[in-house]
Amino acid sequence: MSTAPKALFFDVFGTLVDWRQGIARESEAILSAYGHSLDWYAFADDWRAQYQPTLEQVRSGKRAYEKLDALHRENVQPVLARFGVDANDAMLDALTNAWRRLPAWPDAPAALTRLRERFLMAPVSNGNISMMAMLARFNGFHWDAVLGAELADDYKPNAEVYLTACAAFDLAPQQCVMVAAHTNDLKAAAALGLRTAHVARPNERGPGKGEAAPGVVVDWAAADLTKLADQLCG
Amino acid sequence: MSTAPKALFFDVFGTLVDWRQGIARESEAILSAYGHSLDWYAFADDWRAQYQPTLEQVRSGKRAYEKLDALHRENVQPVLARFGVDANDAMLDALTNAWRRLPAWPDAPAALTRLRERFLMAPVSNGNISMMAMLARFNGFHWDAVLGAELADDYKPNAEVYLTACAAFDLAPQQCVMVAAHTNDLKAAAALGLRTAHVARPNERGPGKGEAAPGVVVDWAAADLTKLADQLCG
Repeated sequence: MSTAPKALFFDVFGTLVDWRQGIARESEAILSAYGHSLDWYAFADDWRAQYQPTLEQVRSGKRAYEKLDALHRENVQPVLARFGVDANDAMLDALTNAWRRLPAWPDAPAALTRLRERFLMAPVSNGNISMMAMLARFNGFHWDAVLGAELADDYKPNAEVYLTACAAFDLAPQQCVMVAAHTNDLKAAAALGLRTAHVARPNERGPGKGEAAPGVVVDWAAADLTKLADQLCG
Repeated sequence: MSTAPKALFFDVFGTLVDWRQGIARESEAILSAYGHSLDWYAFADDWRAQYQPTLEQVRSGKRAYEKLDALHRENVQPVLARFGVDANDAMLDALTNAWRRLPAWPDAPAALTRLRERFLMAPVSNGNISMMAMLARFNGFHWDAVLGAELADDYKPNAEVYLTACAAFDLAPQQCVMVAAHTNDLKAAAALGLRTAHVARPNERGPGKGEAAPGVVVDWAAADLTKLADQLCG
């Protein structure tokens, strides 16, 4: 079996879209209508900080898989309380759906279009299928299929998420490239035999707070997706 | 919750693509290279005739779910034997992949593009994810996600396939429309609360051998997908 890469699997939050800017802006739009004026970036950061601990409960088997939408909705509630916001259902729904309206990093849409000429393309994200579908609509991404956590009923970096994605495309791990701005994602994928591409997002979590370079050896490393497309499409 | 339709779920074989013409042509291209000259339509019909009995083994729980690709590969072998063809692995692979190269009915691509402006769009087919992804590439379909049998590990018309699709889009059955050229598919979907749209494909299984009209009451019935788009997009 040829090990030339045939499919690209994309991490989404942080790699393709700017969740911090998006959540700060969307939260402001939603909560300012209720008369709140918060440090919107601090609010986004606090909400995102709940992410890995909650996912770890699923990864470790302590709780059953639920869609990331449900976990986001659950996680935002103590954050709202800390910021002094009285929550209601409509507000929680709107905030949960904010994750479907995150702006792409400026280089992402055109680069994905170029890469699609050469490779099968799928998000392999912890986001659920509907969230990925709506984010794709919002940003004009064209996926061949939505793979990832919901197909595996588990969360990255657990192995099942990557392996289910390879299997869905009938490919060996060696024929698949995990593309991410996060070392832990690429490390897990590489351990299973997938090839790996790191995209630098040095400001993902705020100015200077993001990975400017991978922390492990990868097959490709690029300053942005345009440069990754230059490398992969020749 | 509004019951206005938000998503369209499409049957694929027979509804969007002409499997009979496609399998006849692809089989001819593959097998004539081995020196065979068969009644290609009879070959296609015989292969397709194995479809429901094999799926029924999965639906009834007699055998575990396997991708339709695997069942197609298994089913073509006795058919080849009946037609006096000595099979080999390369031939079986090529024939299995013929299902990824089926031509769309002429009205399908443009109508799907129109419908996508208004609705979330997904195949809810018995075909597996990779097969659906490649068929979409072949015909220029743009799906929001690939739902269907592989997501449910079961085959239509079992309920789980429809319900898994609704759940993946976070929609109630009443917000989803099953679009198919087959009464049995629509009947099963309607029993679960999905809305239904019948598309006439009167020549699906050969001249005059297809459903010119639905055999049950449906929400929409159309002579082709263009006319369905006229009805649904106003």
